[in-house]
Amino acid sequence: MKRREFLKASSILAASGLLPALKTVKAQEKQTYYMVTFVSGIDYWKDCYRGMQDAAEFLGVEAIYTGTPENDIIAETRVFEEVAGQQPDGILPTIANPDAFIAPINAAIEAGIPVVCFDADSPLSKRYSFVGTGNYYAGVVAARWLAPLVGSGKVAISSVTAQLNHVQRRQGFIDTLAAEFPGVVTSDDLIIDDQNNSTIAAQQMSSLLQANPDIKGVFATDALGAVGVGQAVREAGLSGQIKIIGFDYDEGTLDLIDSGELSATLAQGTWQMGFWGLMMLYMVRNGFIKSVSDWKAAGISPLPPNVDTGVVVITAENSQYWRAS
Amino acid sequence: MKRREFLKASSILAASGLLPALKTVKAQEKQTYYMVTFVSGIDYWKDCYRGMQDAAEFLGVEAIYTGTPENDIIAETRVFEEVAGQQPDGILPTIANPDAFIAPINAAIEAGIPVVCFDADSPLSKRYSFVGTGNYYAGVVAARWLAPLVGSGKVAISSVTAQLNHVQRRQGFIDTLAAEFPGVVTSDDLIIDDQNNSTIAAQQMSSLLQANPDIKGVFATDALGAVGVGQAVREAGLSGQIKIIGFDYDEGTLDLIDSGELSATLAQGTWQMGFWGLMMLYMVRNGFIKSVSDWKAAGISPLPPNVDTGVVVITAENSQYWRAS
Repeated sequence: MKRREFLKASSILAASGLLPALKTVKAQEKQTYYMVTFVSGIDYWKDCYRGMQDAAEFLGVEAIYTGTPENDIIAETRVFEEVAGQQPDGILPTIANPDAFIAPINAAIEAGIPVVCFDADSPLSKRYSFVGTGNYYAGVVAARWLAPLVGSGKVAISSVTAQLNHVQRRQGFIDTLAAEFPGVVTSDDLIIDDQNNSTIAAQQMSSLLQANPDIKGVFATDALGAVGVGQAVREAGLSGQIKIIGFDYDEGTLDLIDSGELSATLAQGTWQMGFWGLMMLYMVRNGFIKSVSDWKAAGISPLPPNVDTGVVVITAENSQYWRAS
Repeated sequence: MKRREFLKASSILAASGLLPALKTVKAQEKQTYYMVTFVSGIDYWKDCYRGMQDAAEFLGVEAIYTGTPENDIIAETRVFEEVAGQQPDGILPTIANPDAFIAPINAAIEAGIPVVCFDADSPLSKRYSFVGTGNYYAGVVAARWLAPLVGSGKVAISSVTAQLNHVQRRQGFIDTLAAEFPGVVTSDDLIIDDQNNSTIAAQQMSSLLQANPDIKGVFATDALGAVGVGQAVREAGLSGQIKIIGFDYDEGTLDLIDSGELSATLAQGTWQMGFWGLMMLYMVRNGFIKSVSDWKAAGISPLPPNVDTGVVVITAENSQYWRAS
């Protein structure tokens, strides 16, 4: 269809009130939005980008994926700045280091480019919103799923003890057990530091099981910890008896769930991050945010500051829906 | 424009790839979404509904406002059930009582009607999402605004001491002062219980000021508390010297800000609640949520569980943007 024909057809629709007038204007030239990641080759981002692509299809705009192959803060800020230099309609970055990104994000915002962070935030930058997992609430979900299965008794936690998102996951788990499941108990000496390493997790969990043969359940707050915990429990001949809920998933984790070595894992809302991240950027870019008559002049942010995309529980019953098709 | 002409024009656009095909289908019959409130006549909901209407205009659907004039839980559940009985395309209720709404919400969800709660949640129901103010974070924003203005010294808190959302606002404020502003201090004996009543707030604050003449700032976590605190500070001849940040706003609060009796107030993201609430309902209703191949069969919720719509700071500099036009 030629542009002239399009404009005619769309102006008829707009005049009828059945199509918002602005859309027809915007459709004249396709808008471009970027996703920027670090360690850009991992599977985890694929689902985030799939969500962004689905939103792009709905809105009739273009989504482009870019990033740096390494976990390199300087390289990622450079890619972000290159992207911003092209004056795109919006950027959806995930953040390798919150402080290093403050200046690049603020510069993009100053240049009029909407920025929303996803999965990992730069909270002290001027980004309009953060779309990602609320880690405390993820721990709540883990407790509400594991505790009824265990019934009563001791549960352990395998975690990266010093890292903030893991601290928050543990705290949500611990608080929820205490508040809602008084019969299910955990304590500091039932927490191991697996350093997100399956070998370390297996060793630490074996020792913990020898000292505490009455452990009935484990919450592993990271993916590789869950794999190691599963191995230790299998070697102790207790697979299926000790209930294990992990975090994140890949084909290997799904296999362990289907075989019963893991009871469940928590899948983060990766698709939601990409979908709602682009949806928010688009609404800002195209003037649909009317929270006040002029949010820029009022000096306020145009978007909800935090969207918790949540976690869902994958078990042997529904694991098929997370298999790559 | 006749329906036949519309279909022709829109099918040309859809075929061109410039307009998603589904939209033209949906436009054939207008979808209907309801907002349901209690104390339905208050100004606070108007801005929520304005956000919903703006989203409805973007999406080409109909938004209808309903509710009960009183703060009556039974009456509100009855209205909700009547609305659900009409099989609308989605319902956006605010919740007078979280437990009383579990059964009605779950029944609507079972009947295939998407439900998202806004402003006040029913967290143990099966609602797909909650869109409202994150109260802890609101306290963080209050501290980050008030502390630099005060510089150093004592600050007081006027609050509804037993109510959960006020507990959370205080905690965010207290934690942020301790973590980020060691020179600005508060303590339990600097907290008054104003019961969201301006007369009680004025009396309590007068007594507190007599006992603590060195108070330099106040965070009032509720609207009427701020008005009373402002009165007590004025009567003590300290208007402008003691910095006061309140919560919520109406024309009266804005007048107090412009006159300098209040330094600022926190406006909740009411427009955002209505806008994003409807946006989420629409995406579920029309099959745009593709987080997994079939979220219903997988037994998971299709939406981010929690959207924190945030607060923004209104001062004499930007108060004009919140005035009714």
